[in-house]
Amino acid sequence: MQLYHHPFCQFSRMIRLALGEMGMDPELIEERVWERRPGFLMLDPAGQTPVLAEADGLVVPGGTVIAEYLDETYGHAMGDRRLLPAGREDRVEVRRLMAWFNEKFYFEVSEPLVREKVYKRYMPREAGGGPPDMPAIRAARANIRYHLHYIGWLLKTRNWLGGDRLTFADLAAAAHISCVDYLGDVPWGEDETAKIWYARIKSRPAFRPLLALSMAGMPPAACYADLDF
Amino acid sequence: MQLYHHPFCQFSRMIRLALGEMGMDPELIEERVWERRPGFLMLDPAGQTPVLAEADGLVVPGGTVIAEYLDETYGHAMGDRRLLPAGREDRVEVRRLMAWFNEKFYFEVSEPLVREKVYKRYMPREAGGGPPDMPAIRAARANIRYHLHYIGWLLKTRNWLGGDRLTFADLAAAAHISCVDYLGDVPWGEDETAKIWYARIKSRPAFRPLLALSMAGMPPAACYADLDF
Repeated sequence: MQLYHHPFCQFSRMIRLALGEMGMDPELIEERVWERRPGFLMLDPAGQTPVLAEADGLVVPGGTVIAEYLDETYGHAMGDRRLLPAGREDRVEVRRLMAWFNEKFYFEVSEPLVREKVYKRYMPREAGGGPPDMPAIRAARANIRYHLHYIGWLLKTRNWLGGDRLTFADLAAAAHISCVDYLGDVPWGEDETAKIWYARIKSRPAFRPLLALSMAGMPPAACYADLDF
Repeated sequence: MQLYHHPFCQFSRMIRLALGEMGMDPELIEERVWERRPGFLMLDPAGQTPVLAEADGLVVPGGTVIAEYLDETYGHAMGDRRLLPAGREDRVEVRRLMAWFNEKFYFEVSEPLVREKVYKRYMPREAGGGPPDMPAIRAARANIRYHLHYIGWLLKTRNWLGGDRLTFADLAAAAHISCVDYLGDVPWGEDETAKIWYARIKSRPAFRPLLALSMAGMPPAACYADLDF
């Protein structure tokens, strides 16, 4: 199994966490999607990470599509640890929260921060590179506060975001938050319950490869890999 | 069953088409999401259409989440007409194309056109209303051309976008395109194969309620409801 990914792609991070929780260890291939490499566009004409390539040749592109594929193909064998749990209501709730973080949190927080602070450094000017747009960064920093409170509110009645057990809802949330945390933009003082949840998920073995990431010329914030932040 | 929807919400249209193909006829409730009605936010804190409310109280929010829910709950009974077909490769391909239209086509074409030409008319200025942004409209009109060619290219080797049978891939594509077609912005001369596919899907009984839509003060383009456009 191979996974085409990028260290700052939130959806790649979600799938890396899921594969880690499922005990799978694919070969990782880093892809800079803005270079539009022809070999990668042959795999996925949308040209976005992550893309999972199975040993038998099946190509599965896109974070949500891969999540559904992993659940359908390998989920039953996970039993109680299935990341998309079997119950009808649970599946709706986990998918609702995956969409919340992969769409709402992404557009309101993690996409603008990663674009302005990371991608714009590495992209040529004609592809959208250049200095960061400070109003966009300030808006994202304001938006993250209510998302942290929403996480804290959910956890008043649940062990994990989607219910009693760890699910794709937690992995989606943690994937986006970990990108923002790398940049030092998570105001952890804002919600103690959200912080405790993140400390719990961050301590899991599946999280270790993400905490080891460091980009040349752009080291992570001090708290990023610290389990006791 | 109730469906909270908006006539110009692409995802609502996809679910209306799916429910029509599945022979289901929910009560329709029109929701203007920008008014942020408290009763609607109680159903779905993300505050977006579509939201499906089952007779037993289960609330299913969001186009993709509803699509997966409908397939899981009612898909088996559809047999050969299942909108997310049973095979492993087919499911990946249909979900890939749903994501293509619900994400890529949405951001590149249908979201900017609907926002600039429809929502900005109805929204107060403080919520983002105002005159349309012409460069955004021109960019979307340029982008739609390569999507039509992509549809035409897929149909060189398939009956329908996702394979031999009608699937959610076709419904997602047709939902987005129908919004753009209402506005008169689909250059049908661009790809004859894409046009023939759209004429075929437009003739299905499930499409009729969408073709009957008309907004006060903003009638559809002449070709919109014409089956022989």
